[in-house]
Parts: sequence; structure tokens; C-alpha cells
Amino acid sequence: MKASRFFVSTLKEAPTDAEVASHRLMMRAGMIKKLGAGVYTYMPMGLRVIRKVEAIVREEMDRAGAVELTMPVVQPAELWQESGRFDKMGPELLRIKDRHERDYVVQPTSEEVVTDIARQEIRSYKQLPRNFYQIQTKFRDERRPRFGLMRGREFTMKDAYSFDRDLTAAKASYQNMAQAYRRIFDRFGLTYRAVAADSGAIGGDMSEEFQVIAATGEDAIVYCPDSDYAANMEKAEAMAPAGPRPAASNALAKTPTPGKATCEDVAVLLGVPLATTVKSLVLATDTLDAKGNIVGAQVWLLLLRGDHDMNEIKVSKVPGLDAGFRFASIGEIDEHFGCKPGYLGPLNMKKPVKLVADREVAVMADWITGANEVDFHMTGVNWGRDLPEPDLVADLRNVVAGDPSPDGKGLLAIERGIEVGHVFVLGTKYSRDMNATFLDEGGKPQFLEMGCYGIGITRLPAAAIEQNHDERGIIWPDAIAPFTVVVCPIGMDRSVDVKAAAEALYEELRGAGVDVLLDDRGERPGAMFADWELIGVPHRIVVSDRGIKEGQYEYQHRRDTAATKVPAAKAAAHIRARLAA
Amino acid sequence: MKASRFFVSTLKEAPTDAEVASHRLMMRAGMIKKLGAGVYTYMPMGLRVIRKVEAIVREEMDRAGAVELTMPVVQPAELWQESGRFDKMGPELLRIKDRHERDYVVQPTSEEVVTDIARQEIRSYKQLPRNFYQIQTKFRDERRPRFGLMRGREFTMKDAYSFDRDLTAAKASYQNMAQAYRRIFDRFGLTYRAVAADSGAIGGDMSEEFQVIAATGEDAIVYCPDSDYAANMEKAEAMAPAGPRPAASNALAKTPTPGKATCEDVAVLLGVPLATTVKSLVLATDTLDAKGNIVGAQVWLLLLRGDHDMNEIKVSKVPGLDAGFRFASIGEIDEHFGCKPGYLGPLNMKKPVKLVADREVAVMADWITGANEVDFHMTGVNWGRDLPEPDLVADLRNVVAGDPSPDGKGLLAIERGIEVGHVFVLGTKYSRDMNATFLDEGGKPQFLEMGCYGIGITRLPAAAIEQNHDERGIIWPDAIAPFTVVVCPIGMDRSVDVKAAAEALYEELRGAGVDVLLDDRGERPGAMFADWELIGVPHRIVVSDRGIKEGQYEYQHRRDTAATKVPAAKAAAHIRARLAA
Repeated sequence: MKASRFFVSTLKEAPTDAEVASHRLMMRAGMIKKLGAGVYTYMPMGLRVIRKVEAIVREEMDRAGAVELTMPVVQPAELWQESGRFDKMGPELLRIKDRHERDYVVQPTSEEVVTDIARQEIRSYKQLPRNFYQIQTKFRDERRPRFGLMRGREFTMKDAYSFDRDLTAAKASYQNMAQAYRRIFDRFGLTYRAVAADSGAIGGDMSEEFQVIAATGEDAIVYCPDSDYAANMEKAEAMAPAGPRPAASNALAKTPTPGKATCEDVAVLLGVPLATTVKSLVLATDTLDAKGNIVGAQVWLLLLRGDHDMNEIKVSKVPGLDAGFRFASIGEIDEHFGCKPGYLGPLNMKKPVKLVADREVAVMADWITGANEVDFHMTGVNWGRDLPEPDLVADLRNVVAGDPSPDGKGLLAIERGIEVGHVFVLGTKYSRDMNATFLDEGGKPQFLEMGCYGIGITRLPAAAIEQNHDERGIIWPDAIAPFTVVVCPIGMDRSVDVKAAAEALYEELRGAGVDVLLDDRGERPGAMFADWELIGVPHRIVVSDRGIKEGQYEYQHRRDTAATKVPAAKAAAHIRARLAA
Repeated sequence: MKASRFFVSTLKEAPTDAEVASHRLMMRAGMIKKLGAGVYTYMPMGLRVIRKVEAIVREEMDRAGAVELTMPVVQPAELWQESGRFDKMGPELLRIKDRHERDYVVQPTSEEVVTDIARQEIRSYKQLPRNFYQIQTKFRDERRPRFGLMRGREFTMKDAYSFDRDLTAAKASYQNMAQAYRRIFDRFGLTYRAVAADSGAIGGDMSEEFQVIAATGEDAIVYCPDSDYAANMEKAEAMAPAGPRPAASNALAKTPTPGKATCEDVAVLLGVPLATTVKSLVLATDTLDAKGNIVGAQVWLLLLRGDHDMNEIKVSKVPGLDAGFRFASIGEIDEHFGCKPGYLGPLNMKKPVKLVADREVAVMADWITGANEVDFHMTGVNWGRDLPEPDLVADLRNVVAGDPSPDGKGLLAIERGIEVGHVFVLGTKYSRDMNATFLDEGGKPQFLEMGCYGIGITRLPAAAIEQNHDERGIIWPDAIAPFTVVVCPIGMDRSVDVKAAAEALYEELRGAGVDVLLDDRGERPGAMFADWELIGVPHRIVVSDRGIKEGQYEYQHRRDTAATKVPAAKAAAHIRARLAA
């Protein structure tokens, strides 16, 4: 491609609403243009990146035996009502009425449509397994779209859906997809982790997220540097501490803590480690009668160490809380504890509650907790001696760096990631709701076992930039750069030699199948180099009159601090060798 | 591709709502699946065709210097309000409110967004000409979607937009696009015509439609078999008849025509050719005061030959009618003619009207028209003698086969076509509405001259089928067939020889870059052949045990009535020669 036939448009300044590097740099490099909140035009330079992402994804999906189709962007509401999602999904589902006042949605995903196709097309076990995918426009009406393509409203997603005869086969399809995803992300040339994620009702290790590692990532990723263990924060298990609970050594005492309503403040006041304090979380579950009317409530007290954070996914799996819970009201708290939040604890309660201790708290001795009296805490609290053992012990908290790895092979570390892919076993949720069955060997109808697999096609370039940029601009991995190589001639408009040499090199690279751009715009060297450093083309070769005289061109990788001279006659070969590396 | 890894799904019967061949055959061949009214999933077999169409379009657009980008499907209403289309467009514009109750549309085209991009990006004449295109999902909420992909609601269109410094340059951009379109439609391997279309206010020959010729086409195409002249029915000019008006030879007479309220009935009753009758069309234009209030109306009488049809586009260009017109009310007709429709004419009127004669009527002698009295017509009517010459003579009618060609090179013929492309000079309509300017050499702001250029990507396959099918199914041109070649092994599951030979041939073709499918599903020959004839793969080669023994495979083009034996060793070469042809 010659720049004069392409569209290069860079900006000195990013718009003020661009908070993260990828948003700023994609705007400045002329890759995207904002049309409205979370809605962007993919400009020519950005579209080239997206097309390369799509091509790699398509190639590996095809290789894995998935078959491409395209489902409509605008989908009739009927199927969404069958699955229940039309009502269950919040305002992020964009709903439309057509000219006849019939309901439609703009697809955020396509489980319903693909299940509808499957129930029509798949009749026999002989047609299984089956995997359909599409690369198609999606819309999610985010409350607060931000960060450019990272959290837009309209975006492109590759979504694949597998159909299998039973859970064993579904797991094999899942593993096949997870493997394809590894190939895809390997080819992108990004540093990423596949992390175990919560798989809801299915259980087991049947959900993984693919996270591109970047300090600005929205997600916390937990991994073990000494093993393969990796999970997201929701999923990562906090193991029970090794060894028995220490014996009590302090006496129970009611200690004045005036105005100190947080564990942090109490620890500072008393001069003790935060890890010796225990915080109280008061939840409630409603009791329903046969008609679904609320007829009562059960109050729960969850105890976590003062320096730990509650993990809502884990709490939602505690027996008794797994059908749904809420935070207790001020009235319920007063009724059971006779005290306001900030000084609550499991001793001296007015009315019994269900007591759940985090695994860590369950083996603590001599701990500190609220006294159920304003401005007082209890110190030297010990299980068994001062209060009965908890009703339940469970993993209630987020892991922290240094926790033991669940696989027993080391200690956990935490880093930030950007989710760009997700593989998931769906089970029979949709096939039951929509009655999608096949006939098994015995001629009996069975529900299809499903899996779903997404890749954020338009988020991927943003994630790649978060991971690969410097103060001058983007640094694209070769595989998804808008152009792999840029030939920069100096004074092409003045020198016929430079023009001829630059065009010859361009044609040679092009002929060898290299995605090369010749910058024939006639910009001055400084502006030209700044443009391509901002845009992030990984390989640059400079052709100048002096270089021609010396028989040397200047090659520089975007990560190099200086240029290397390469013999003019071998310049193309030099670059091809760098690309193959 | 091996069929076992692809998705082949054919139907014996088409759904009853499939009225045209392309709809029926695309449904039966498993290329599309209906999701709702005018909304289809592109199934794997159909998507392959669409992708080939896209690839050819993209290649030729790039070659022509257009640059690809992708504009959002869901677009904020603000820009549509700037251009006025948000209010002007009818219910075919799909409107949405987001979670914040802000207005959006699902794009039917993207003039507003691309003009918004241009006014931000194009600052100087040095940046011109410029042409942006996209291949993207569109939505038009048709009142009555039908004919499958031919008139769907959601569809894919390639839309390009050119920006130029003046009308001369815009016309050059237009010609460049028209040329690219010819290359594109040539490559598709379809019989098509580029026909002149009405270009509205711009005038000149600045609008052409690309019509795929097919008996089932919705559009009438006018062309001259002896020259290059071609236009659509709206545009094709009916020339003034050669020679002077004949002299009057019959006396004017009031003739009883009881109950004969149409020209056809009158001609039959009187035993005269329909071409001797003249029909009356009564229109009205409203007179407005300075405030836009209707203060009066002018009634118009248009005269057309009894066998001719009015052309609304032409009528809308008659001076005095070009600001808008309507059909006259019964009250207005009674006031001016003193008679009800069916017996109206230009003689014996109660009140004068503006009289416009079609060019043909203006040179008729001894014609027949209504007497402005129920159950009577006037015969032997002659201009000058019986009534004054008309106020205006104009081309008011659709041409008919046998009319002289406007280029004077022969007689016109008419055939049916399906519009698959349109090139159009827009002028400054959008740039004025949206204030999209650039600075000319003198530093003065000028409005951008625009053109727009569409290709119906998903309509194209339907048009191709309308033109290329038989009772067994589709017959794809090579360039857009889902697969170019199908290798059909007979008894692959029983014979290792057949399996080995079929796979070797498949690999040989694949290695040579041929888009070949190996049907390894194990279907019986009859069902297998029927599938591929329905799907319409143009080249088929059959490998059987007998063929292997004889050293001969059977080749058959989809249009051939019988197979040809080709030496097994040369089978791949034989096919490649056929593809190159």
C-alpha cells in the first residue's frame, strides 16, 4: 500500500475524555473516531488491525472444526422471551419496536438464535458434535461506556456455540475450543493468561477467561509463579490455613475504641496488626411461603479477617445463601445486635443469627471484634471459650498475594488483566428453555449440551496497546500491526534516486508477501517518523540519498533505541529475516 | 473443505412463503434461514457466497483508490437531525431509544456519518479527492419484506462516498466508480446492464443503476439493441414523434359510450385502435401565501395516449409541477369539468385548467377523448380546430418497446432487471446541510462535492440465482459459488481405493488453490448429486471403483446434460483448464 492511496491522519493531542493509553493512542493514530458515547467508526488504519485479528480468529476457528455463519444483528424478541432473557436482562439489552410495534433487540450475544437454529437443524446424535461461530456486530447499552474500544457499546465479537450429546462430549468440545484459543492468542503475539473462572451451576473447571496482561486491566488475575495455576479473583480459592488453631493466650476484654468504627482504625488505636481483627458482615435471606410471599427473614453474620475482602461469588455459594441474599436492614441489625454497624460482633447478641466464619477466621485465636456496643470492641476473643464454634466455615474472601496456591505448589501472585476471550460450558440451560433436543441412539429425545466461546475482536487491539506502547505511541506485534513494515524515503519528491530505490524496495517486499506501506506523502523526516512511531508499525526502513550513496539503508524495529545500517541490496532479506524470527 | 467438517443441510420442500426462485432455492440449499420477517441468518453455505461477493467488491474498490472503514450500525440521531433525514424518512428508518432515552437509528445508509467524518478530516483541497467505503450491516424497515434476500429488512451493503473539490472532479470520481462497478459485475460472471437513472436535482447522466437481467426482476430496463443506450423506466426518454402532425380528416362528434369509462373499453366499443384514444389525468398544485398557508389551487389536465402509462418522475419535472403536485379531488374535478372521472377531456370544460399534452398526443390527429358528460366521448378531435394548442408539451409517459432510442440509433427494447448497484452524484446536498467544507487554493471555504455508490452485497446472490437456475437448483458462476468444485466419491466408506483416489484428487486441487469440497458424508450417489445440483456447485467430478479401474473419472459442469470421462491422472488439470476458461 502506498500512503498516498491510503488514509493517514494523526493527531497531536488526544481528546480529554480519553483516560487510558489505548484510547488516547487509537484516537491520536487515527484508528478510531468517536461518533457517540461508546460508538466508534473504525477508521482505515484501525480497521486493518481489526481485519487481521478477525483473519487469525477465523483461521483457527475453522482449523478447530467450527463452521462460520452470520446471525442477524436485529433479532425478534420472541426467542428472547422463550429463554427469559428479554425480561431478565437489564437496560444493557437494547430493545427496539419496528413499524408494526413488534419487539426486537440488537444482539448482545446470540445464544437464542443459535439454539433456535440447532433445534431445527440437529435431529440426530449422528449430527453431533457441532460448533457454529460468527464474527458480528454486537451492542450492549453500558451505563457508562468508556476507555474507547475497551468498554464500548457497539463492538465486534466472535461468538461460537458448541452442541454435544452429553456433558463428556461437551467438555471435549470445550477443551478443543480452549486449545484453539491458546493458538489464537499465541499468534497475536501478546502476553496473556488463561485463568479459571467461575462456571456457575455447571461446576468443575468448565470456564476460563483469556486475559491480556496489562497494568491498566480492569480484572485482577491470580496465578502461581511456580505452577500452571491461574484463576480470576472471583474463582481463586483461598485455602484453609495449614495446622490447628492456636490455643487461647489472652483474656477476653471489652476495650474502649471511641469513634473507631473500622478494623483499620481499631488496629491503629490498639497498636496491633490488622490481621488480628475480624470484621462483621450482616446479610439476610428472606423466607417465602408457598405463594412466594415474604413471611420472614433469617439474619446471617459473616466473619472475615480485617485485612480481607469479601468475595460475593463465593458467598453466593454458601449453603443457605445460594438461593439469593441481601444486606440486612438497619432494623434487622438493631433487632439482632442492639447496636449500629461499626461495632458489631458475634458476642453479646440480642437474638441468634446464622454464624459463618471464613476459613481463616475459623482458626484464629485471640482476635478482636465489635462488642455490639458503640465505641467498644472485644479483644482476646477465642472460639469455644468465648463463643460457640461457627455454624459454618467457608471460603468467603478474595485471595491476596502470598496466599498458598490451591494446587499446593507455591504462593499466589496477583496481576492485572484485560479479558479478551472467554470459554464456557453452558450445559442445557438454553436447550431446556427452548426445547432443543436430538434423538439419541435409542431414539429418545435428549437436550443438547451447549458451550459458548467469545473473543472481543474490537477490544483485542485496545488490550494489545495497553500491553505494548511507550511515550511515543503504539508498538504492535507483527501479526496485528496495521502494516508490518513502513518504507520511509527521505526527500522522495526531490530525489529521483530515492524515489526509485524506495519504490524498488517496496515492490520487492510486496512481491514477497510482506504487508508493507510506502510513505510517499512527502512529509519531512521528523513528522514522518513521529507518525509511524505513534501508529506503531513494528519495522521501519529509511531510504535516503546518503544511504544510497553508502549502499546502506537504516532499519529500526519500533522497540529499538537506534537504527541499524543494513546493506541496501540485502534490505528486503534483512526485514524478512526479522519477520520470520 | 471436507463436507464432514462443513455444514450441508438441504431441504426437499421450500417454505410456502417463498415466492421467487432465489428465495426458494436459497432456503432449500441451506444458504439462509429465516429468523423473522425480512431477517435471515446467513448459514455456512450462503455465507461462503456472500464472502466471495465481498472479496471481489473489496478488491476492486481498493484498486479504484477507495479506502475501507467501518461506520457504526447504531448511529446517534443528532447527525440525522442535522441532515433532516431523521424527520423526513418514513417508518422504514428504524429508530431506537437507548437507556438514557436518547434517539438512535439503525443505519439504512451512512451519508450523515461519513459527511461528519469528512468535515472533521478534510481541511484542504490538497486532501481531495477522497473516497471512503464500508461493507456493513444495514436495516430498512420495509412494510412488506419479501423474496428472501431480495427485499429483506436487514442486509449487507457496500456503500462508498466520494468527496471532491468541484463538480468536474466529482464527475471524474463518479466515472472512476462506474468503471470499478463494471469490473466488479464482470467478475461476478453475471449478465447485467448499467442503465441511466434519474439523478434528481443534479441533472445530466450522473446516476446509473447496475441491473442483473432476470425475468423476475422488479425493475423494467429500457435499452437499445443496436447501441449502448440503456436506462431505467423512470429515466428513459420518449422522443417526440418524427414529422409534423397529420391533418384533420374526421369531423368532431359526440359519440355515446354508455358505461365505457376506460380507453380500452371505448376502443373496443368503437372498433378503433387503443392508440387513437387519449386519457385524461387531473392533477392539482396548491398555491401558498408567504406564511405557507394554502390559499388556492391550480388544476392541471395531462393528456396521454390511451395505451401509454404516466411516468411520475417525468411529470414531477414539468415546469409548474416540479415543486410538488397531487391528484385533484373529486370536488375540484367537478368544479372544472362538470363530470365524474371516466369521461373527462379537454373540450367543454366548465373552468379553464393548465393543459399539458404528452409529446405523442401533441402530434395526434382525429383522436378520441372524454366529452365531460357521463356515457359520452368526443371522436375526431383535432388540435387547433377543436381546441387550442396545449399550454405545454412534455414527455409524460413511460417508453414502450419499439419506441425510437433517444440516441437515434434504433428502437428500444424492454427487459426485467434486479438492481444490485447504484452510482450517484450527490452534489452538495449533505455538505450544505451539515456544513462540510474545505479550503480551496485561495483559502476560501467551499462545500464538498459528494457522490455515493452502493452495492447490495446480500441481494447479489439472490439476483445471481434468479438469472442462473434450472428445475434442479442453482447454477453459480464460478466466481461466487460456495465451492467451485465438488469431488463426489461413490462408496467412499466401502472402498479404500475410492477413498484414497478421491482424497488425492481433493488434495491436488486444493494444493493448486482451487476452492474444492470433498463430499465425504457417505451419502448415496442419487442424494449426493441432487444436493450439489440444488446447491449449484458449477464443477463436479465423480470418483468410483469402476472409474478407477478404467482410469477415468466423470466430470460434469452444472450446465452440462451429461458427464464427460476424463483420464484420472489428468482430472485435476482438466478442471483447472475449465476454471481458467
